[in-house]
Amino acid sequence: MTAFTATVTVRLKRGVLDPEAETTQRQLERLGFDLDDLRSADRFEIDLDADGADEAAERAEEMAERLLANPTIHDYDVEVAERE
Amino acid sequence: MTAFTATVTVRLKRGVLDPEAETTQRQLERLGFDLDDLRSADRFEIDLDADGADEAAERAEEMAERLLANPTIHDYDVEVAERE
Repeated sequence: MTAFTATVTVRLKRGVLDPEAETTQRQLERLGFDLDDLRSADRFEIDLDADGADEAAERAEEMAERLLANPTIHDYDVEVAERE
Repeated sequence: MTAFTATVTVRLKRGVLDPEAETTQRQLERLGFDLDDLRSADRFEIDLDADGADEAAERAEEMAERLLANPTIHDYDVEVAERE
């Protein structure tokens, strides 16, 4: 077994309104920053042991499907790296 | 001016309690997943125009300092990529 960290990034699908991100963008503009767009996402860093990177990614994807993401409104991606 | 996307990842500092992440971890364990640890972070993807990647990163860092992160409890990092 090898120690991995799987990073799951959960984003709202395009077209889904994100009032919190809009508020953040407006606040930054009010502070004088110039930006075209701001999107927010949730990121989960999961430490797990697996026989290989493929297995670690597969399990992290299953966690995203079952709990971390809502398939109706979210897209997600998974990255896996060996942990030291 | 070039179009960039700056990604700001905001994490709780080590030692700061994260009850939401603990609950998520417990829920995953209840669903039968085996994991060692789970940390959550906020991710902001900011589209902005700048003369170069260094300037874009500098401005995103300033946004983190002024609004996106709370220096008492958060660490953050910034990644910049050219936007197509």
